[in-house]
Amino acid sequence: MCAGRVQLPNPHLDDEDGDYLMHLEIPREKWHLFNDIKFVCVGGTVGRMEELAKQLNESLRGGTDLEDSFVNQRYGWFKVGPVLCVSHGIGTPSLSVMLHEVFKLLYRAECTDVRLIRIGTCGGVGVRHGTVVVSTGAITPGFEPVYVTSSLGEPLRLPTDADTDLREELVNSKSADDYFDVISGKTFCTEDFYQGQGRIDGSFCDYSKEDQRRFLQKLQELGVVNIEMESAGVLGMAGKVGIRAAVVCVVIVNRLEAELPTATPDEMREFEDYPIKLVKRYIINKLSN
Amino acid sequence: MCAGRVQLPNPHLDDEDGDYLMHLEIPREKWHLFNDIKFVCVGGTVGRMEELAKQLNESLRGGTDLEDSFVNQRYGWFKVGPVLCVSHGIGTPSLSVMLHEVFKLLYRAECTDVRLIRIGTCGGVGVRHGTVVVSTGAITPGFEPVYVTSSLGEPLRLPTDADTDLREELVNSKSADDYFDVISGKTFCTEDFYQGQGRIDGSFCDYSKEDQRRFLQKLQELGVVNIEMESAGVLGMAGKVGIRAAVVCVVIVNRLEAELPTATPDEMREFEDYPIKLVKRYIINKLSN
Repeated sequence: MCAGRVQLPNPHLDDEDGDYLMHLEIPREKWHLFNDIKFVCVGGTVGRMEELAKQLNESLRGGTDLEDSFVNQRYGWFKVGPVLCVSHGIGTPSLSVMLHEVFKLLYRAECTDVRLIRIGTCGGVGVRHGTVVVSTGAITPGFEPVYVTSSLGEPLRLPTDADTDLREELVNSKSADDYFDVISGKTFCTEDFYQGQGRIDGSFCDYSKEDQRRFLQKLQELGVVNIEMESAGVLGMAGKVGIRAAVVCVVIVNRLEAELPTATPDEMREFEDYPIKLVKRYIINKLSN
Repeated sequence: MCAGRVQLPNPHLDDEDGDYLMHLEIPREKWHLFNDIKFVCVGGTVGRMEELAKQLNESLRGGTDLEDSFVNQRYGWFKVGPVLCVSHGIGTPSLSVMLHEVFKLLYRAECTDVRLIRIGTCGGVGVRHGTVVVSTGAITPGFEPVYVTSSLGEPLRLPTDADTDLREELVNSKSADDYFDVISGKTFCTEDFYQGQGRIDGSFCDYSKEDQRRFLQKLQELGVVNIEMESAGVLGMAGKVGIRAAVVCVVIVNRLEAELPTATPDEMREFEDYPIKLVKRYIINKLSN
């Protein structure tokens, strides 16, 4: 279903030849150079995507110079053979601008069999820090499995299930030597880091600690194991254009115990490396098959 | 009403002494140094905020070294005397993380009489590029004057009117020598740049050019003069904590004529300087009174 050439559900694109990628700034002359892309990895910061690109470059291409990269004031992208690593900033609006343009690039470059993986950090719901979560899907405020965006000022609701095969392959990419656990479960995706995620230390808060406790308990009862801010956008948009997608995040704080991370800076750096390790191993395995 | 010391509607903050600003990374020992802040200027990119800070530093402090600044992978901030310039990324989720922490900083530093101004770029609705728009308020998908975020998984709807006095003072800061026009009107704030703003060149599009035309016409009939992605968050969150706020954006494309900007890079740089010029003049006037 998702195999084969990337096709986009936008009939207007075939009429347009003035199309350009305003935020990614990849000029038309270079689009064809992306024809070999099989994996698009996205993550919050330019730094994390550069780290992933460097590690992949070491493993896949013996650490030669990065093939192509670009960083502007909005986003940064790095191409390493068949892998494109792109930053998305915080939240689904920032993510959506980038994904629209990456999907158009994949279409214009006539790519085939592409998989999209978000790598990030998250809060855990009864899950300890350092655990890697591969999402089964995302639920959003209102507790439904939909990404709610808009089209012409009206709500646009897109389903947010992760691709089952891709998720399983990612979970199975754990090695016995890994210091971290890998689990699967639902992800709660919010548009706010403070009151949206039930924190009591934002600039405003209209609820009690007891309300907070009930909210986190409700999430647990719904099968939610982690909370972050982009999964619904990744899964909703990828589903809309027919690209297989997954979300792999490391827990940096167990929200049943604390509002904000309590790990040391060194531990935090190590935690952030866990999902990179897992995804890198998945990609290398996949390419060697 | 909004005058006096910054107070936050969060009773939990007074119980907490472990509070920290996770994303802005301003350590507790430095909070008191922000006590003199009277203006917080926010904008999408670190580059634009640095440019504003440099220009203000030249005018207010004779171009000496910047008092204090910090740039991480998420945000950048620059302090120039009583002005704090902070980047917010794209969209209200990215903005809200930063604003929660800036509001907490203003509270912890015991600041008084603070004004918040967003400086940005936007699409115009029947307004030509290069025009500066000072928003009267923001409307969001659904066409209501509310910022819709969530609290504990339930919708949280915050009104999005701009402060009338601040808006008028900003409009009146135009000088007869300025090359640009300054107008006032409603701003449509979306969570998406493509189908959310009625563009037909996103990676998916379920509507016709005729639907697009009707959508833009409807916006015009509602008094909307420009479209962007953060105004509702700025006005909604500032209103919630009782801080006067305004949004000043320059039009970079008239959406009744094109999807994406047609101006040259030089023109674009000049356009981006217009709201900076206006806001800088407002701040300098205000400080000299």
